[in-house]
Order: sequence, then structure tokens, then C-alpha cells
Amino acid sequence: MIEFELKVMVPALGPIRDRLVILKATADGVRHEHDIYYNSPVRDFGTTDEALRVRYAEDGAMVTYKGAKLAGQKLKAREELNMRVASGETCESIFERLGFTKTAEVDKRRELYTYKEASIALDEVQRLGTYIEIEIMAEKEGGDAVARIDAIQQELGIVGDPITSSYLELLMAQQ
Amino acid sequence: MIEFELKVMVPALGPIRDRLVILKATADGVRHEHDIYYNSPVRDFGTTDEALRVRYAEDGAMVTYKGAKLAGQKLKAREELNMRVASGETCESIFERLGFTKTAEVDKRRELYTYKEASIALDEVQRLGTYIEIEIMAEKEGGDAVARIDAIQQELGIVGDPITSSYLELLMAQQ
Repeated sequence: MIEFELKVMVPALGPIRDRLVILKATADGVRHEHDIYYNSPVRDFGTTDEALRVRYAEDGAMVTYKGAKLAGQKLKAREELNMRVASGETCESIFERLGFTKTAEVDKRRELYTYKEASIALDEVQRLGTYIEIEIMAEKEGGDAVARIDAIQQELGIVGDPITSSYLELLMAQQ
Repeated sequence: MIEFELKVMVPALGPIRDRLVILKATADGVRHEHDIYYNSPVRDFGTTDEALRVRYAEDGAMVTYKGAKLAGQKLKAREELNMRVASGETCESIFERLGFTKTAEVDKRRELYTYKEASIALDEVQRLGTYIEIEIMAEKEGGDAVARIDAIQQELGIVGDPITSSYLELLMAQQ
């Protein structure tokens, strides 16, 4: 599956939250996500634009691999593989034994909504600020994913430039 | 955790099964296990004596990393990390994206028993024959794990030389 994503830095989450309520978006709850990112012993994921992550949240641990961003897309689009694991700690140990190294940790509070089959996240990211992400998972070509994300952005009244950097990249750029 | 394991090739499983019944071992059921082994892009696991595996069985998928066999042990002893995953197929895809390559697949029918806190497996391994494995998971030093395994071997009337090769290695040696 390919993840199509719009991310915009916003001055405050309150007005967007109000719009989501008015539009009757489904509220999917609030989570605290603690993400641990790894680099490969074979190639630098910072250069190849890949990501390997163990995420801890209230509902358990999840491993995610993200491929390089696909060229020629207006928004960020990349392959994403997600897998729930019974133990994030064991997964960390396995990655370490396999030669992967921890590069960064990202903490955020995330409010989740579903609206018109898109996943919307209102994020407060430690050391980075407040962001909205609108995400659609689609088959290879993506179809009208970009147009649908555009339309939702309009409905929510979000202005600002799309950010194609991940939170990981934004944090690394600060260092 | 360290896995201490005795493995012996046996001419037939029936007599051992009968002994287990007489000794009132707990029968933990029969499984079909389909194992996929991976090699690392960094180092040859055949040389370093490590193993990375995705196992499919009736109760789901499990990822296992096994470290090199520990020196100075009478039986096979090695670090073992096990983690249940929600999707073995997704895990296979993630390993492939990370540069790991499939080396072999092992299929077996496994009868499981618990006896005196040891895990006992009666295995019919495709292309390899019938084997018994007696396994105890222990902390670093292992304590009396080897002596306990020895005692169980006696009680079960098992003769034959311990095999320290894994099924993977036995299969690779056939090729």
C-alpha cells in the first residue's frame, strides 16, 4: 500500500478540531505515541529516505517500514508496511542484534479522526510544535487520493505549505 | 533468555510418545510449522551461526532471532528472542525491504509436550526424518539446565548422539 500524506504546521489545533466537529468527522481518540527510529547497517536511511520504526502507544507496539518518497507526487507518497508486534522491547532487541542502530526518538500527543475515508491526525510533537496530517492509504497509483486530500484541506480551512519532511527529519535538522 | 537444547535423531516417535504418556507429561497439541529463514545483508548467518526466522503455525506467526551457539556448553545453548507478529507476510516484506534474503524453508509436524518444565517436541521434518528436542529456557548461566535435560533423556530412554546442527543447517548440508 502507498501512503499519501499532507502535513502542515499550524499555529493551533483548536480551530481545526472545531471544524472537524462541525463536519461530523469520527473522533478516534487520543494517543501518546513514542517512536523509536532505526538506521540500517547496510545503507543510510537518511540518504535513501527510508524509515524503520518501533512505535509504542496505549494499544500496543507496532513496527513500520516506510520506503523512499515516490517521485513526481505533489504530496508525500511512499510505501508503508505496518505490523503489530506482541512486544516492542523484543523487537528492539532483535533489530539491535541484526545490526540496526537507534537514531532518534519522537514523542507526540495525537488526536485521531476519520473523515471521508481519510485519517486525520492533530499532533503536538515534542520540541517541534503542532501539526495536522491528512493521510489516505491507496493502491499503487493512488487514483484521486491527492485530489481528495486537497478537498479535505479546503473544508478544514487549513492554509500553509505542505511539509514533506517526516518528524524524524525535522528533529534531525534541529540538531 | 538462553535456550538449552538437546536434539537427537530417532528411528521412530511412537516409543517416546508411549513413555511420555506413562510419565504423565502434559500434551500440548500437534502443530504444523512452516519456517522461513533469512540471511543478513551484513554478514553470513551460516558463518556467524545466527538465525532469523518467520514461523507460521496454526496459532499465528512468530519471528525468532537466534544468536551464535555459546561456547563451552555440552548441549546447544544460544540466545533466543521470540516475538509474535500480527502478520507473517508483512514481516517477510519488511525483512526483504531491509535487505534480508530468504535462504531456506523448513516444514515439520511437531507434537509438543511439557515435562518437568522442559519443552519436548517430537518432530517429523520434511526431507530430514524424525527427531526429539528437549528444551529449557534459562537465564544467562543456565544453572542446572543441562543436568535436567540429561535426566529427562534418561527417563525417556533416548539413545543416540546429540545433534547441535539446526534443521536449517541439516537441510543446507543436504544440498
